[in-house]
Amino acid sequence: MNKTTFDASMLAFALDRTMAEPLQVQLAGHLRRLILTGRVGPGARLPSSRVLADELSVSRVTIVAAMEQLISEGYAESRRGSGLYVSGDLPENLLQVGNVGPPPSASMAMPVPVRPFQAGAPDTALFPHRDWARLLDTIWRRPEPALLANADPLGWAPLRAAIAEHLNLWRGIACSPHQVIVTSGAVEAINLLARTVFRSGDRVLIEEPGYRAMRRALELNGLQCQPVPVDAHGFDTTSLTSGATPAKGVAVTPSRHYPLGATLPLSRRLELLDWARRTGGIVIEDDFDSEYRYQGRPLPALMSLDDDDCVVYVGSFSKVLSSSLRIGFMVAPETMLAGISRLLAETGTSAALIAQPVLARFMADGGFAAHIRRMRRIYARRQTKLLAAAAAHLDGLLDVRPAAAGMHLVAELAPALAARMNDASIAARAAGAALTVQPLSSFYAGVPLRQGLIMGFAGFEEAAIEAGAERLGHVLRQ
Amino acid sequence: MNKTTFDASMLAFALDRTMAEPLQVQLAGHLRRLILTGRVGPGARLPSSRVLADELSVSRVTIVAAMEQLISEGYAESRRGSGLYVSGDLPENLLQVGNVGPPPSASMAMPVPVRPFQAGAPDTALFPHRDWARLLDTIWRRPEPALLANADPLGWAPLRAAIAEHLNLWRGIACSPHQVIVTSGAVEAINLLARTVFRSGDRVLIEEPGYRAMRRALELNGLQCQPVPVDAHGFDTTSLTSGATPAKGVAVTPSRHYPLGATLPLSRRLELLDWARRTGGIVIEDDFDSEYRYQGRPLPALMSLDDDDCVVYVGSFSKVLSSSLRIGFMVAPETMLAGISRLLAETGTSAALIAQPVLARFMADGGFAAHIRRMRRIYARRQTKLLAAAAAHLDGLLDVRPAAAGMHLVAELAPALAARMNDASIAARAAGAALTVQPLSSFYAGVPLRQGLIMGFAGFEEAAIEAGAERLGHVLRQ
Repeated sequence: MNKTTFDASMLAFALDRTMAEPLQVQLAGHLRRLILTGRVGPGARLPSSRVLADELSVSRVTIVAAMEQLISEGYAESRRGSGLYVSGDLPENLLQVGNVGPPPSASMAMPVPVRPFQAGAPDTALFPHRDWARLLDTIWRRPEPALLANADPLGWAPLRAAIAEHLNLWRGIACSPHQVIVTSGAVEAINLLARTVFRSGDRVLIEEPGYRAMRRALELNGLQCQPVPVDAHGFDTTSLTSGATPAKGVAVTPSRHYPLGATLPLSRRLELLDWARRTGGIVIEDDFDSEYRYQGRPLPALMSLDDDDCVVYVGSFSKVLSSSLRIGFMVAPETMLAGISRLLAETGTSAALIAQPVLARFMADGGFAAHIRRMRRIYARRQTKLLAAAAAHLDGLLDVRPAAAGMHLVAELAPALAARMNDASIAARAAGAALTVQPLSSFYAGVPLRQGLIMGFAGFEEAAIEAGAERLGHVLRQ
Repeated sequence: MNKTTFDASMLAFALDRTMAEPLQVQLAGHLRRLILTGRVGPGARLPSSRVLADELSVSRVTIVAAMEQLISEGYAESRRGSGLYVSGDLPENLLQVGNVGPPPSASMAMPVPVRPFQAGAPDTALFPHRDWARLLDTIWRRPEPALLANADPLGWAPLRAAIAEHLNLWRGIACSPHQVIVTSGAVEAINLLARTVFRSGDRVLIEEPGYRAMRRALELNGLQCQPVPVDAHGFDTTSLTSGATPAKGVAVTPSRHYPLGATLPLSRRLELLDWARRTGGIVIEDDFDSEYRYQGRPLPALMSLDDDDCVVYVGSFSKVLSSSLRIGFMVAPETMLAGISRLLAETGTSAALIAQPVLARFMADGGFAAHIRRMRRIYARRQTKLLAAAAAHLDGLLDVRPAAAGMHLVAELAPALAARMNDASIAARAAGAALTVQPLSSFYAGVPLRQGLIMGFAGFEEAAIEAGAERLGHVLRQ
C-alpha cells in the first residue's frame, strides 16, 4: 500500500448501521485505526467529503463531523485550498500502538536458491534477460489486437507455429501447428489427457524409476500407475504383453530415460508403437531435455515414427528457459484434438498468455536456438568439470558416469560407501553442507532396486562445481 | 525461423547410416530441401565444415563433398574469406517446388474479438499497458536473485502479501499472506481442493443457475455436483438439510450471485457457516467480480465471518486486468494449508511467475486500486448507457434490469418475445449479427427454469453499446 494515497474503499467496512455507535464515531474510529497502523501514512491526502459521502452512501454532514473529530485529535490537518491530509508530524510512539492488521507473515519461506547439485535447473543467470525484457516491453506496451481478443485456450497461434517448426527441425516430428497445444507444463498435459482419452481407473505403465510428478499427476486423475522396472536400455517392452489386465497407456522418456539416461532403442520403439496400434493404447512421450546433447546424434522422437495416432508428445521450456515460466506444450494426434479443444473451451487453459508472444518472437528470430547452442557448449564444459572434480574429490566413494546428453549425471555408490550409508541418508547429510543431491531411491514408486545420486551440473559455475564436489567428499568421508 | 541464420541442428535427422545412399548425398539432399522450402533463405550463412562435422559426427570430407555438390548446383556460393552462403539469386520458380514441410495451419482459428455484449470481459484497451510493460521490463531486465531461485509453488511472496492486504481492506478478510495461494485461476483452485480436502465421489451443492466452468472443474475431479435452485436472494440454504446423502461441500457466489446478481443475505450466510461447522462441510466462496460495485456498500466476504476454518475464498484478477493473465488466488483456512502445500510441492503450480512480481508492484504502488477506481466510474457510465439504449431499442422485447454491481445485466424476455423465441435461439440469431448474448438457459445444469439474456456492458465503448442494442432490436423484431 502506497502510504501517500488513500482509497475510500478502505473504509468500506467502517460503517455498520445496526450498531448503536453513531456513524461519524465509527468512521472516525476506523480512520484513526488506519493511521495508527500505518496503512495510511503521514502526509497522505484524504478524499474530499463529497467523494467519501458518495462512496460510503452516508451524508456529507456525517463525514465532516468525523473529519473534525480527527482534526481536533491531531490525526488530520487541513491545508488551505487543497483539502485534508493525515498529519505529517504524528509522534512516533503514537504510531506504534499495537497491530490490529493481519498477523505478520513470518511463516512464509524464502525461495530456496538453486545450489549444487540440484538437477533439472538451467542456469538462469545466463538467460538473456535483457533481450527477453525488451521483447516483453515491446510486445505489451501497445499489444496487437489479437493479444486483447478472447485468447485461444489452445495457445497463441504464432507460438504454436514456432513450436511445430522447432519440433520439425530438431525432433523430426512432422506436426502441424494446430496439433500443438500450449500448456502450463507436463502436469496440465496429463490432466487434459486423463480427462479426454483415458477413463478413471485405466491402467498406465510407467517407468521405474521415473519422474515422480508425472506419476502423481496420473494418479491424481484417477489413473492406476503400474511401475515397470527399466533395464540398461530403458523401458522394458516385454511388460506390454504380460500382466492380467491390459494397460490403456504407457508413459515413457524414450530420448533419454529419466533419470538414468538410457536411450530407448529403435526395436523397442517399434514394439511400443505396435502394441499401441494393436490394442488402441496411448503412448505418452515425455521429452524433457532433448535439447542438450553433447555426443552422437539423437534418435528422432518416438512420435515421428507414429503413423497411427497413438503417440502424444509432451515437451516443455522449463529446461531451456526457466521452470517458473510455466510454459509447456503437447502435440496431440489429430484424433485427440476435438476432445481436448472442447475440454479447454469449457474450463480454460492454465497457461498464461503473457510470455507466449515473447517466446514466439524469441524462437522465430533465432534467439532461442542461439541460446540453446550457447548453453549446450557451457553445459558440456560443466559436465567435464563435474567428472574431473569427482575424480579429484570423490574417488573411491562415488562412481560418476559421463552422459551423452542432459543436465545431470548419475553417481553410483562405491561398495565401501554403500556399506556405510544409503542414498537417502547421504542426501540428508549433503543438505547439511548446503548441497542438493537427489537420492535415486526417491525416483522409485515401489521398493528401490538401485541406490545412487542424481547430480545436476547445468546450473552451476565451474568453481561452484569444484567446491561442491570437495564438500561432498568431506561429507561422505565423515 | 530467421532465414538469415542457420543452425546445424536443423540437419540432425539428415543422416541415416543404415541407408544405402552415401552420407554426403543425404546431407546435400537435406540442405537442398531446407533451401527449397524457404526454411533457409537466400544469403543465409552456412556453418563451417568443422562445425558441421562436429555437430553431425561425420568426417569433414563428407561435409565438403556435400557442399561442393550444392555449389555446383547453384544453391550455395562461397564468399572469399568468410565461408559459404545460400545463393542470393535463387530463381523464384526454384523456390516454389512444393511443400515438404508440415501441412499449412489453415485450421487454426483467429482469436475471436470481444464484441457486444460478451460478459465478464474487462475493457483491455483501457488497461495501463504502458505502465505494465515498463514494470515488466524493469523487473525482468535484471531480476532480483529471489526471482531466479526455486520458485515457491504457493506464489511470489510479495504478491501474496499484497493480495492479503487487498482482501483485508476491500473484503474485510483478516487473512495472513501465508494463507494466500497464487493459482492460474479458479479451476486450479478447485483442482487443489478436490485433491486435498475432498474425496472422489463427495457431493457438492452448487448454484442453479451457476458458473459452468466451476461445475465442470468439480465434476472433472470426480466430485458429484448437486444443483440447488437459487431464489431471489441467491443460494437457498434450506437445501443444506434436505436430501438423503449429506453434502461435503457448497460452492457459492455470496457477494453477487453469478449470473443473476442477488447478494446472499446475512442470515443465509450464517446458516451456511453453521451448517459447515456442524457437519465439517467446506464452503467455497467464489468472489468473481466484487471490485465493481456502483451503489450501496458491499457485505464483507463470507470468509470474514468464518471462525471455524470452513470457508475457502477463491478470487481472480481476470475481471480486473485480463483473463489471459491466468493469475488467480485462493485463501485457505490454516487447517488446509499443509495438504495444499504438499500437493503443490509434488506437482508444481500452474501459475507462471512472470506476471507475479509485476502485479505485486502494481498493487503495492497503488496503480491497481487506481485502475479499479477508474474502471468503476467508466463501467458505471456504460451500464447507464446500456439501460438507456435498451429503453430506446429493445422496449417491449427485453426487460433489462439495472444492477448494483458487476459487469453485466440480466435481460428478461418480454412475454410477446418469449412466445416467439427462446433465449438460445435469440443468442444464435444475435451471433449472426456479430453480437454475443449468452442465454440464461446455458447456465443451468438441469432443465432451465428461467429464460433470459446475459448482457455484458463493461468491455464496450458507449457508441458500441448503442449500436449493439440497435442491432439486437432488429434481430429480435425479425
